[in-house]
Amino acid sequence: MSALATRLFRGRERVPALDPADRGLAYGDGLFETMRVADGHVPWWDAHLARLALGARVLGFPAPEAGWLQAQARALLEGAPEQAVLKLVLTRGAGGRGYAPPAAPEPALLLSLHALPPTPAALHLRWCRTRLSLQPALAGIKHLNRLDQVLARAEWQDPGIHDGLMLDARGHVACATSANLFARIDGRWLTPALADGGVAGLARAWVLANAADAAQATLRPDDLASAEALFLCNAVRGILPVGQLDDICWPSHPATETLRRDLGRELSAA
Amino acid sequence: MSALATRLFRGRERVPALDPADRGLAYGDGLFETMRVADGHVPWWDAHLARLALGARVLGFPAPEAGWLQAQARALLEGAPEQAVLKLVLTRGAGGRGYAPPAAPEPALLLSLHALPPTPAALHLRWCRTRLSLQPALAGIKHLNRLDQVLARAEWQDPGIHDGLMLDARGHVACATSANLFARIDGRWLTPALADGGVAGLARAWVLANAADAAQATLRPDDLASAEALFLCNAVRGILPVGQLDDICWPSHPATETLRRDLGRELSAA
Repeated sequence: MSALATRLFRGRERVPALDPADRGLAYGDGLFETMRVADGHVPWWDAHLARLALGARVLGFPAPEAGWLQAQARALLEGAPEQAVLKLVLTRGAGGRGYAPPAAPEPALLLSLHALPPTPAALHLRWCRTRLSLQPALAGIKHLNRLDQVLARAEWQDPGIHDGLMLDARGHVACATSANLFARIDGRWLTPALADGGVAGLARAWVLANAADAAQATLRPDDLASAEALFLCNAVRGILPVGQLDDICWPSHPATETLRRDLGRELSAA
Repeated sequence: MSALATRLFRGRERVPALDPADRGLAYGDGLFETMRVADGHVPWWDAHLARLALGARVLGFPAPEAGWLQAQARALLEGAPEQAVLKLVLTRGAGGRGYAPPAAPEPALLLSLHALPPTPAALHLRWCRTRLSLQPALAGIKHLNRLDQVLARAEWQDPGIHDGLMLDARGHVACATSANLFARIDGRWLTPALADGGVAGLARAWVLANAADAAQATLRPDDLASAEALFLCNAVRGILPVGQLDDICWPSHPATETLRRDLGRELSAA
């Protein structure tokens, strides 16, 4: 599925192509955001920008000025489909050979518009063998070093499997390749703590703030097997109920449906 | 230090620019090699290609055909300085949004020629706070997920510090940001085992094969403090004796000088 439209910038200058010396390519030295678009707007724009700014502080290069960035996004979103996806990639920009960051980086920015992917009524998941790296220095931010997820997603080709769950290096449940996970255990929604890896998802934060008794916890595979319900969540598709994980099946759960409806309303509202 | 010359390919077709949807940019989904050039040739060409092929197998996409790749490298190296550096970046190529690798990837290849960096007589090193991620699935290969090294290298700006040593997540000595490490302990050259991270360096392999009694071992910071000598090594600059690590100083050691001369002769021979 290729992009519907793309715009590329070096600093604030629109450019036709990425510099081959860009450190996003050389080292994955950058960040991304994947945003739900509704009627030409991004409902969670401010939260995406806040995570981008945090990531830029962690990596040590400047994030674009918010007003300028919003104007560029608006220009790209003119004429976008009613429901769509806006992806943003921000890198440290070009550099010389070697890891030392340039003293005055000129970040590169790529904005691209994509069709909203279809949402199955209930997800079919599997366990991945590839584990999530332990790297506390990068935990939470949405950086471009994504080979863990690429290797995990490459473990299956069956289009009937929608996503895969990953453990971290300690054997604790971490996340799906492209979403965070909640499990309903003893009447509470629990999600893995992400001190050592994973992404501080915006939908995850919404659930932690809005669902009664939601909390972070250490989860093991056995905890999921005995859970009343599971769902994945991300900022593009909201809450996705899990119907099956390998051989374990779950019926629809009313608590999941309530959250799904509430978050769906927020994400698709312009 | 910008590239002296650059050539970019999609599959075997020379192209003017990288596709903005390239997965090397999106996810660091690719590999690189950094090669010493002497008189228009790369003395360790076959070993670089073997490591590239291994990395491509691990990531699951095709490496370029060896004869074709050598012809492209030769064309770029015509008129190169007597001593130089050839960098190769190979990505899985363009893909849609999402981690699933395309069924029929068309890898992108970037070849660039750079000046050989100066080599100090003895290195001054420091310890880095950033630790190397644990990811056995990627250990040994030279992939494009290099934020560990970028963050570690960003810890100092003092040009008098040449490189930094990194520990892994367990607190074992791992490597320098851009080279592997050997320590002379009880008359033997020991280098960290790399089962959980790091790069299987070609200079490291040369030392393990050519130095008497060289071996892999688990090393802790205290082991380095009491070592008779340390050196870093990589395929571009060969063996680099360490003169200082934070407050600890070492004089020149005859065993290091012998290895340096032997490896230097091999690397600079056309």
